[in-house]
Amino acid sequence: MSGSTLGTLFCVTNFGESHGPAIGCVIDGCPPGMALDAADIQRDLDRRRPGTSRHVTQRNEPDAVEILSGVYEGQTTGTPIALLIRNQDQRSKDYGDIALRFRPGHADYTYWHKYGLRDPRGGGRSSARLTAPTVAAGAVARKWLREQYGTQFRACMTQLGELEIPFESWEHVPRNPFFVPVADVQRYEDYMDALRKAHDSCGARIRVQASGVPVGLGEPLYDKLDADIAKVMMGLNAVKGVEIGAGFASVAQRGSVHGDAITPEGFETNHAGGILGGISSGQDIEVSLAIKPTSSILTPRPSIDINGQPVEVVTKGRHDPCVGIRAAPIAEALLALVLMDHALRNRAQCGDAR
Amino acid sequence: MSGSTLGTLFCVTNFGESHGPAIGCVIDGCPPGMALDAADIQRDLDRRRPGTSRHVTQRNEPDAVEILSGVYEGQTTGTPIALLIRNQDQRSKDYGDIALRFRPGHADYTYWHKYGLRDPRGGGRSSARLTAPTVAAGAVARKWLREQYGTQFRACMTQLGELEIPFESWEHVPRNPFFVPVADVQRYEDYMDALRKAHDSCGARIRVQASGVPVGLGEPLYDKLDADIAKVMMGLNAVKGVEIGAGFASVAQRGSVHGDAITPEGFETNHAGGILGGISSGQDIEVSLAIKPTSSILTPRPSIDINGQPVEVVTKGRHDPCVGIRAAPIAEALLALVLMDHALRNRAQCGDAR
Amino acid sequence: MSGSTLGTLFCVTNFGESHGPAIGCVIDGCPPGMALDAADIQRDLDRRRPGTSRHVTQRNEPDAVEILSGVYEGQTTGTPIALLIRNQDQRSKDYGDIALRFRPGHADYTYWHKYGLRDPRGGGRSSARLTAPTVAAGAVARKWLREQYGTQFRACMTQLGELEIPFESWEHVPRNPFFVPVADVQRYEDYMDALRKAHDSCGARIRVQASGVPVGLGEPLYDKLDADIAKVMMGLNAVKGVEIGAGFASVAQRGSVHGDAITPEGFETNHAGGILGGISSGQDIEVSLAIKPTSSILTPRPSIDINGQPVEVVTKGRHDPCVGIRAAPIAEALLALVLMDHALRNRAQCGDAR
Amino acid sequence: MSGSTLGTLFCVTNFGESHGPAIGCVIDGCPPGMALDAADIQRDLDRRRPGTSRHVTQRNEPDAVEILSGVYEGQTTGTPIALLIRNQDQRSKDYGDIALRFRPGHADYTYWHKYGLRDPRGGGRSSARLTAPTVAAGAVARKWLREQYGTQFRACMTQLGELEIPFESWEHVPRNPFFVPVADVQRYEDYMDALRKAHDSCGARIRVQASGVPVGLGEPLYDKLDADIAKVMMGLNAVKGVEIGAGFASVAQRGSVHGDAITPEGFETNHAGGILGGISSGQDIEVSLAIKPTSSILTPRPSIDINGQPVEVVTKGRHDPCVGIRAAPIAEALLALVLMDHALRNRAQCGDAR
Repeated sequence: MSGSTLGTLFCVTNFGESHGPAIGCVIDGCPPGMALDAADIQRDLDRRRPGTSRHVTQRNEPDAVEILSGVYEGQTTGTPIALLIRNQDQRSKDYGDIALRFRPGHADYTYWHKYGLRDPRGGGRSSARLTAPTVAAGAVARKWLREQYGTQFRACMTQLGELEIPFESWEHVPRNPFFVPVADVQRYEDYMDALRKAHDSCGARIRVQASGVPVGLGEPLYDKLDADIAKVMMGLNAVKGVEIGAGFASVAQRGSVHGDAITPEGFETNHAGGILGGISSGQDIEVSLAIKPTSSILTPRPSIDINGQPVEVVTKGRHDPCVGIRAAPIAEALLALVLMDHALRNRAQCGDAR
Repeated sequence: MSGSTLGTLFCVTNFGESHGPAIGCVIDGCPPGMALDAADIQRDLDRRRPGTSRHVTQRNEPDAVEILSGVYEGQTTGTPIALLIRNQDQRSKDYGDIALRFRPGHADYTYWHKYGLRDPRGGGRSSARLTAPTVAAGAVARKWLREQYGTQFRACMTQLGELEIPFESWEHVPRNPFFVPVADVQRYEDYMDALRKAHDSCGARIRVQASGVPVGLGEPLYDKLDADIAKVMMGLNAVKGVEIGAGFASVAQRGSVHGDAITPEGFETNHAGGILGGISSGQDIEVSLAIKPTSSILTPRPSIDINGQPVEVVTKGRHDPCVGIRAAPIAEALLALVLMDHALRNRAQCGDAR
Repeated sequence: MSGSTLGTLFCVTNFGESHGPAIGCVIDGCPPGMALDAADIQRDLDRRRPGTSRHVTQRNEPDAVEILSGVYEGQTTGTPIALLIRNQDQRSKDYGDIALRFRPGHADYTYWHKYGLRDPRGGGRSSARLTAPTVAAGAVARKWLREQYGTQFRACMTQLGELEIPFESWEHVPRNPFFVPVADVQRYEDYMDALRKAHDSCGARIRVQASGVPVGLGEPLYDKLDADIAKVMMGLNAVKGVEIGAGFASVAQRGSVHGDAITPEGFETNHAGGILGGISSGQDIEVSLAIKPTSSILTPRPSIDINGQPVEVVTKGRHDPCVGIRAAPIAEALLALVLMDHALRNRAQCGDAR
Repeated sequence: MSGSTLGTLFCVTNFGESHGPAIGCVIDGCPPGMALDAADIQRDLDRRRPGTSRHVTQRNEPDAVEILSGVYEGQTTGTPIALLIRNQDQRSKDYGDIALRFRPGHADYTYWHKYGLRDPRGGGRSSARLTAPTVAAGAVARKWLREQYGTQFRACMTQLGELEIPFESWEHVPRNPFFVPVADVQRYEDYMDALRKAHDSCGARIRVQASGVPVGLGEPLYDKLDADIAKVMMGLNAVKGVEIGAGFASVAQRGSVHGDAITPEGFETNHAGGILGGISSGQDIEVSLAIKPTSSILTPRPSIDINGQPVEVVTKGRHDPCVGIRAAPIAEALLALVLMDHALRNRAQCGDAR
């Protein structure tokens, strides 16, 4: 299976470039008989859409999705669901001067060496814009999981640059442009404004959670649920670290503390993050992501051109000074896609297990 | 593809249970014409073998590997290489009392609910013993990568419980039972002795590195090199976190610092950990793992039995008080398997790219 | 991998319904650096296009293809190539009366029972119209194979209903609407006219050939080249039989005749059809297909409706009285897709074999 | 996925060489909780075992199977089932003289060119001996299908060389060494004796049938049920043709005849062979195979050696003069493996469809 398809049974094939005619995906394997229309998908796309606050890229893309197939009279038919999003607001001239030089921290260098050529407009295939089809596919997955099991997904930012963000309530998350779980976001507004003036960028840490997960999802030995979650999360643009449950803090824990005690009422703690032996336990799945600072900055950086000559690179274009800001809905979608695929895989093999 | 097979082209199918007749794997897709004998594989198996110091499980397994197929007159033929390791030192009676109760922190609970039954002897399929076939397969991969590109793999422990371990030199790693890069390991001996007396366990952090990696490995969008590395690492028993390059530290970095500057002589830093846009850059690949404390401890823990009744669980058997101690060679093998698979995938698609 | 994706490395994901907004496919895994534009693909699409003679369906579809991604400045970039064909000439009202009844010989019955619902317009997903994206993908594959190895594909009709068609020359094939290798096609014109008047349909036998095939393509044990060819051919709408080389005639052959003698100048015969042990031998690959008569006919047939009640079915709509007539370019495309995938697989594993 | 694994969810990975230490397979994805022991598998292995009559190879292999994993206390656990068969009666010296020359009609030539080397002993990997693990895996599949749906598999020979074999009754099939459905087999005994004396070989035609198949198995567009059946059948050693239902006879049929009429009581005929639009209809699945004459004969044949020099080849060793004789149980197993995989795939996607 080639590298642009995700999933074994609920398969999402992603296509497109940042400044090409269109981006989109084909979802194959969706169960039939689920009500689905474009609005179900648009809702999630709108949550990751660029241009919605001054803290993200000013590229203005409606990201309107068209369902090309797989839905008949408002219901999924079990055949492939093709989703199309036309690119609208390309300004490829912004990228003319980076076509022949490699932006530090970017995929320019590696695409060039791997493929021998690359589409440099807006980062081409390596642009975070390609997370839009993933979010669209995720919307289909989460609808099915919600209807089938009551599974819910949510994500928030827990660190912005060096600022650790306290957890107040999930309620605040949709009410601010940062997806932070706090009521007063002035501190983050100021931080981002200063960063932008400094022509620099910062990283972020994102927490993703699934609740209402059925027990039994995950395929040991290699396709464990946590393994597949780590894969999709690390595969998200700019992610450099993934934790499940206690994550790196578990290194310093004792076994007598880490192993979540079980009572007739359920687990007492959730250091495991909802996964034991690679299989969901029914507890909330808890994931944490490290997102690196955006590489596209106005500060000049030393690099080389395609002939190996030293050059200086300043990235103009329109960029997110912290790509983590829009990562929350994407991370939710990725988690939903993994759970969806494993829900079908589990039903296939263990559909009649006790 | 079912969950016990790893890889798209260099496919490793793992089988066996901790106390069954045998464990092993089938490697399909190995290039033909490579010299290979059992000794090439045994070397790596011996590095992860149990019973080699008082700090690891005292189960005595020779882990002698037999090559059943795929090699003719000392050379790989391109056909599947089946590797067999007979289990020798099973003491299944140790596990009689956990057959009907769930050890906290273990896969008992989830296997039971997923499959409706489980082989409880020694953890059955969820035992870390099943990393032996992975290591065996990894030995084949690293031999090919070494001969083809000069790629080298190494790993060391960088934290033991709450003790951060300074990096002195890779030379020390093979000379102590902890795989630590320091000359004097008395501190770690004492720490482990105290832990064992306390009937408890601790976690560890492992660093894994590949050097001599060709540029261009990795398949965007979903099968990025870092995504696949995160998958195999998170899939390793007890792992709760994975970092590539700067990892979680990149959250607080500025873009002007994180993005590795490029000069005609190469990259100036390696915050990326050798991967840009999901594709290897030719720099060293740097991975860090968080390993949780062993769940099998002699301290009694509250749990339930298969009927949901409260019970207390004490895990006797023979266990590693810190599974991280033997993780280094396994992590190397996993990294080798990912690079091997991507090397073949890259040759397939881009074999004639510039 | 779900059922609408073909190939392991050169992966074609097909989407769409006969009367939905659009049909198309995503090709993932195409090598980078190949010149490609829409005209390269349109040429083959035009060869299978409906409405080109009175002997095929009168549905008028331009089948104009749009390349949405994967091509930059006229060259493939190695990223997914999405191809879009808008449906234009749907007349879904023709199908209103078959929405609730099952046409004999059609997929209506099985789709309904499998999925619990179906898109009945024009056969929905089961329509032969969905071969158009396959042909489009095949055009990309055959261009690469031609440039890389000089491989050529051709197909012709060898039997129409009960009429066996003599082989005169490949030159005649593109010059008549039947893809027959004879100069004078009056006999077939008359035959088809009579059939149409009788409100009936007939089958056909198609021969497909690839020449200039490199030796070594095919992956034993299960993914043999002939196995994969049989799969795609039997998967083509209406196909009921597939032969390689001598096919069913080999049953009555003696081993002393069938086994193609080898001389320093090459093979003396080609009963094997270019494949030995599942691997291409370098000889022409020879495939023969049996295509059943079209099930959509104006003659009334007994059937049942979705409630199990007996009904009579007459299929109006616009249909090919012999679907075999347009099968030649499709069969060529399918053969090209299989060879392309195996060429990449072979390069991956055996790229440096002697 | 590499070429020695069959199936998407019920995955069989085959390994071994004819004269290596062992052959076997790993079955991954088997549902848990099914009673299984070695005897369940041995029964089918014994039906294809060599050395059981004078009309097949005299190699004496007990083909005793050992279950290495995946079964605990007599029940499948849902983890991989590894099956091992030690080779016993190798006489590799028989093959010394063909190590450097290519037997006409054999895989020698293509393996050599693909891999650059080959294991020539007994045909190595290309030997029909490797169908034994397939039969073993098939035994597991058919047990599950029988218990779940009552599905039954049977096969018989319908043509031996030029002799067409009338169908009398399935009852006769297990009572003669030819798997023919007739009471008196003297004619076939004589035919085979004459053939052996003539130092020649012949082909055969095999009919395979599955009854009690649930409706709804098959994944359009590419992974249709008939497509996957054609794949495994054409992939069986020596097969040159595959038909479903009416097969090649459908070419001369009229649509008014071929399309099986449907009544409230069921289908009136079965020209479709149990599959419509690539999905099982619930009717018997009917498949027919063309098996070529064995290439290994005592009659001298012209060929070349690995240096391209002309040689004469006489194949001594121990061979089946008609490989079709032992093909019936293998074909049944292959059909069972395809149905098993599709049963799981269907349950995954359509498990809750009406």
